[in-house]
Amino acid sequence: MALFGCPGKLSGLLLRMGQCIFAAASVGAMVSAHGFFNSTAFCYLIAAMGIQVLWSFGLACLDFHALRSKTNLQNPVLVSMFVVGDWVTGILSLAAASSSAGVTILYSRDLDYCRSPLVPCTHFKASILFAFVSWLLLAISSHVTFWLLAAV
Amino acid sequence: MALFGCPGKLSGLLLRMGQCIFAAASVGAMVSAHGFFNSTAFCYLIAAMGIQVLWSFGLACLDFHALRSKTNLQNPVLVSMFVVGDWVTGILSLAAASSSAGVTILYSRDLDYCRSPLVPCTHFKASILFAFVSWLLLAISSHVTFWLLAAV
Repeated sequence: MALFGCPGKLSGLLLRMGQCIFAAASVGAMVSAHGFFNSTAFCYLIAAMGIQVLWSFGLACLDFHALRSKTNLQNPVLVSMFVVGDWVTGILSLAAASSSAGVTILYSRDLDYCRSPLVPCTHFKASILFAFVSWLLLAISSHVTFWLLAAV
Repeated sequence: MALFGCPGKLSGLLLRMGQCIFAAASVGAMVSAHGFFNSTAFCYLIAAMGIQVLWSFGLACLDFHALRSKTNLQNPVLVSMFVVGDWVTGILSLAAASSSAGVTILYSRDLDYCRSPLVPCTHFKASILFAFVSWLLLAISSHVTFWLLAAV
């Protein structure tokens, strides 16, 4: 089958690269924020986005290899491995992005910490935005691979 | 097909009832906590769990009706409606539970608010635990219906 974004296709490679780039941008924005380590949720976001960078980069390399050597990646064992990995990283990423968003909304709306110049709320917000974009791209990939597994 | 937990089966009815009960318990625990409205994340949790109660209760009624009248619910239109609804409520529930968990961890570990008897952290924790259990049951249902849609 040739679904949009399935493993071993150019669209799949682009999706994986997008996930990897946005997750890396999220880590970068969070690490550059002063005092992020004061909140457990922000540390968890960095960990979850780090896992997603590794996973998406690995799969992007695999897609690139399959595109160059014209290998077919769609055998049931590989696809089920992709599905499990995609779902685990996807759930971790969504949970991390949401918990950080909860904390940032608490800071900015409920506690009014963001008025203080010591709390870099724009960094936090940028990092969370990148994390949500990365999760959205991962959600597309994981639905496509799950659909593929059911149809294989 | 007769997958575990698919619509119109007893296991499906039990899953839906479990979702509904745990989501209602989550709302109850949060509403009974003093001062929950000070955090946006907790208000969002109540809204998301309210939506999940309505959705799961509706589907439980449908399952119950299908079991009594021995109707087959597995036509493509109905199943795709279930899939979309399950995914939307599932993502909302996970996001709500995670953002509330992020705020509660911030309260209990990072800001040490939980030492004060005015902040009912045990209520918050119980509510989040129920929300995660409810989300877990919904995740099972939504994977089963998605699988069914791919195979229909």
